[in-house]
Amino acid sequence: MSYNLLKGKRGIIFGALDENSIAWKTAERAHEEGAEFVLTNAPVALRMGTINTLAEKTNSEVIPADATKVEDLENLIEKSQEILGGKLDFVLHSIGMSINVRKGKHYTDQNYDWTHKGLDVSAMSFHKLMQTLYKKDAMNEWGSIVALTYMAAQRVFPDYNDMADNKAYLESVARSFGYFFGKDKKVRVNTISQSPTPTSAGQGVKGFTGFMNYAERMSPLGNATALECADYTLTLFSDLTKKVTLQNLFHDGGFSNMGVSQEIMEEMEE
Amino acid sequence: MSYNLLKGKRGIIFGALDENSIAWKTAERAHEEGAEFVLTNAPVALRMGTINTLAEKTNSEVIPADATKVEDLENLIEKSQEILGGKLDFVLHSIGMSINVRKGKHYTDQNYDWTHKGLDVSAMSFHKLMQTLYKKDAMNEWGSIVALTYMAAQRVFPDYNDMADNKAYLESVARSFGYFFGKDKKVRVNTISQSPTPTSAGQGVKGFTGFMNYAERMSPLGNATALECADYTLTLFSDLTKKVTLQNLFHDGGFSNMGVSQEIMEEMEE
Amino acid sequence: MSYNLLKGKRGIIFGALDENSIAWKTAERAHEEGAEFVLTNAPVALRMGTINTLAEKTNSEVIPADATKVEDLENLIEKSQEILGGKLDFVLHSIGMSINVRKGKHYTDQNYDWTHKGLDVSAMSFHKLMQTLYKKDAMNEWGSIVALTYMAAQRVFPDYNDMADNKAYLESVARSFGYFFGKDKKVRVNTISQSPTPTSAGQGVKGFTGFMNYAERMSPLGNATALECADYTLTLFSDLTKKVTLQNLFHDGGFSNMGVSQEIMEEMEE
Amino acid sequence: MSYNLLKGKRGIIFGALDENSIAWKTAERAHEEGAEFVLTNAPVALRMGTINTLAEKTNSEVIPADATKVEDLENLIEKSQEILGGKLDFVLHSIGMSINVRKGKHYTDQNYDWTHKGLDVSAMSFHKLMQTLYKKDAMNEWGSIVALTYMAAQRVFPDYNDMADNKAYLESVARSFGYFFGKDKKVRVNTISQSPTPTSAGQGVKGFTGFMNYAERMSPLGNATALECADYTLTLFSDLTKKVTLQNLFHDGGFSNMGVSQEIMEEMEE
Repeated sequence: MSYNLLKGKRGIIFGALDENSIAWKTAERAHEEGAEFVLTNAPVALRMGTINTLAEKTNSEVIPADATKVEDLENLIEKSQEILGGKLDFVLHSIGMSINVRKGKHYTDQNYDWTHKGLDVSAMSFHKLMQTLYKKDAMNEWGSIVALTYMAAQRVFPDYNDMADNKAYLESVARSFGYFFGKDKKVRVNTISQSPTPTSAGQGVKGFTGFMNYAERMSPLGNATALECADYTLTLFSDLTKKVTLQNLFHDGGFSNMGVSQEIMEEMEE
Repeated sequence: MSYNLLKGKRGIIFGALDENSIAWKTAERAHEEGAEFVLTNAPVALRMGTINTLAEKTNSEVIPADATKVEDLENLIEKSQEILGGKLDFVLHSIGMSINVRKGKHYTDQNYDWTHKGLDVSAMSFHKLMQTLYKKDAMNEWGSIVALTYMAAQRVFPDYNDMADNKAYLESVARSFGYFFGKDKKVRVNTISQSPTPTSAGQGVKGFTGFMNYAERMSPLGNATALECADYTLTLFSDLTKKVTLQNLFHDGGFSNMGVSQEIMEEMEE
Repeated sequence: MSYNLLKGKRGIIFGALDENSIAWKTAERAHEEGAEFVLTNAPVALRMGTINTLAEKTNSEVIPADATKVEDLENLIEKSQEILGGKLDFVLHSIGMSINVRKGKHYTDQNYDWTHKGLDVSAMSFHKLMQTLYKKDAMNEWGSIVALTYMAAQRVFPDYNDMADNKAYLESVARSFGYFFGKDKKVRVNTISQSPTPTSAGQGVKGFTGFMNYAERMSPLGNATALECADYTLTLFSDLTKKVTLQNLFHDGGFSNMGVSQEIMEEMEE
Repeated sequence: MSYNLLKGKRGIIFGALDENSIAWKTAERAHEEGAEFVLTNAPVALRMGTINTLAEKTNSEVIPADATKVEDLENLIEKSQEILGGKLDFVLHSIGMSINVRKGKHYTDQNYDWTHKGLDVSAMSFHKLMQTLYKKDAMNEWGSIVALTYMAAQRVFPDYNDMADNKAYLESVARSFGYFFGKDKKVRVNTISQSPTPTSAGQGVKGFTGFMNYAERMSPLGNATALECADYTLTLFSDLTKKVTLQNLFHDGGFSNMGVSQEIMEEMEE
């Protein structure tokens, strides 16, 4: 299935670790829809993952970049424009990591060096990315920047730990920077708040499987998959959504507006 | 420009009064994207407008229906399926009218018969439409129902009068019925909260032009047009947004998440 | 326990049916805090309940009023000012009823006469009440109007039926009328969104007990009781909250901002 | 005016710089309402301000603490319990500072060392404070923790710079930690989102006066003052709000739910 929805568009996709990644699916689908793009990830993630397979499949180049380092972002953005032959039309930020989660530190017992580091990787990186794009005037008018987020930014999911606060910061950056990017460059900035997704990152969260089942039974249409998220992301990169900006868009089968479902109620009554 | 985004899809479009209508633009664009559909409007609106021009242009039939009358909706839905040759994939509800506004009654001096009538036309009609679709099992799986709304449902716009409360009711109906439509029929239901738009209906609101200018200067990307709203609506009818449901989606150049813009501040300082 | 928080204040309290009612508890507590007030309810509710016990206990008079009838409201407001000796400082609207719920009509199979009637009683009555207070200039400056609501206005609780949409309308009326009441009369208008509460009305909702248990386990502080809601309401009637207006205030032990609790997760895993 | 609303309650108040501070007013009013408390501020702020005047007036001791240093917070909490003779019932966090703002760095041209430092002072300090209180089991059951915030956490106010993102993080921390504090210790955690207030900190923001005027004309009840904010804070420390938790409470004369006011519209039309 292809609509040529992104024909002639150029972009950068962060965070395609392996074929479970939302960014991976987005790259595959963007390629099918006619886009050309550069893939990027942190050097350490590049070593762990299989991104070269994706690069071949989508006829893309891979440029390593640590998204917390402005000089890496500068290099990435310059090179990408050279490779792709012009300014960018879309950018996907799909980066998140909490050392407190990885090391099993409870939310009430944080190591604050790790908290700062996780925020830098997961949220401030989005500001750094946009500031670099903005300063280099690297986006075409009516371009589109998207970051992936999670509803823990609005509501409590106890095991999500400090990633909740990181996502709240990320979503705020989307609004704050989105204003200047819109006003000055006519570029839109949005976040997609996705269902729990069994990516390699998602599965690292404690109690993830139980939570996926809960969300599945709570959502009238069930959880959204990585591929469905990729499709939705494409609509935001397309020319059909030019006036959507500063929004946090829930892509979750309806979970976000549920109080309780009949299935959960029945389960509780047993 | 066409992506064949709605190729093979069948639908019903309410509320195309004249070429300024969002529903009109949606019909034109849906036709370009390969959809087939029935146009409908209240008998009185059909007489006032020029819908036959649109019907010819989009190769559509027109079936009159008063959306407050269940029997009219039943007839519409039956006939539409006969004409289109199968169940429906999309429905657009673009209906709104306040007698209190028309007659110049202030919000603090309502005529409650008119308030009830306006609610019936503007909001309860959406429930009636969905209840009829649901009972007749008239939607295909993964079909999409969209209603147009306005941000007065969340925040105060003094001149919007009782339409604010009608839109709040409409958005609640989208969530409430969307749950059952999702769970039982795998159909998604969303509302689009659009910028002030100079449709014939919009222009009837007191102080409309002043308000459009205000919104234009507040929104980082400016107001969204009727045509842009049509494009956005198409993405929600397409197969690329299957897991988006129960949402109220702002399509407004960013207005909804603005506190104040620099332009408004400068204007205030003068 | 008394702080004399409402000393010298005069008001009207709607909806005290029996001692389980939030309005009943509010009347008792308002009396302890030094307020004087009139009690009112629909004639049919007055016959069913035991309001005279409350009237004696709080040294109050009872004036019957059908809140859907403007003439009843006019009479109530005039008489109340005569009895209390001046303009009003606070009003509590605690009224809600769905015939569809009572008669067991599913949300997807509504009887629309009943839907209109339920809306009139549960939500439009709040507009009628405020319009009558406003026209009669019956509120003192810095007075406070509160209506009770439920979170089904924002999120789906399937068994709550058309009361969800009624509450969405009610909350919108609070904002819309609150603007004019604030600007013109310096009166604040808010809604309190309360935990599921085992009042006589609440218990009529299908699956109520199961849902109370669910909410109890989801809320970090557990469900809020009727007495606690009364206490919270008093703070909104007091002089300590003069600039709080147009708000929908959750009083629910934290439920509204929960995604999932550990207790619910553990229950799901069993 | 005193209701003895906080009689017998013990607390800590951060951030009373001078008599324009909300924290200063809160201390004065808490004292009037019968509370005993310790005042604290960063050593540098203590030198700049006049906190000893407040300490004398409210019969309080001052303990310096840099809220970004866990050891300072530990010392503060231990000493406060010794001085006050028991566990704490309330804590007010009123701390915020952006070096980017101070140094005139635009939001699109951040110095990220300063961004991190501002976040640490303005937002992560709230986590550190709560983590220290939690680990030391220093709060009484049904105690109350409040942090002051601003609506830039939800919507764009261009001059608010990176403080917007800091406040978003702060509000998320309130929810995330509030869950564990509620569940484990029966302590409530909320934020108050206050009108623009002419404190010494507030006035440092560029274009502050123009913005205050704008907010005044947008809010149906006008801007909330520092004293009114103090009063509102007291209600959240009192026993009358025991089940309010995880909330972000707007105290702003209605600003937060306004789309546009008549006054602003008239101004725009001139």
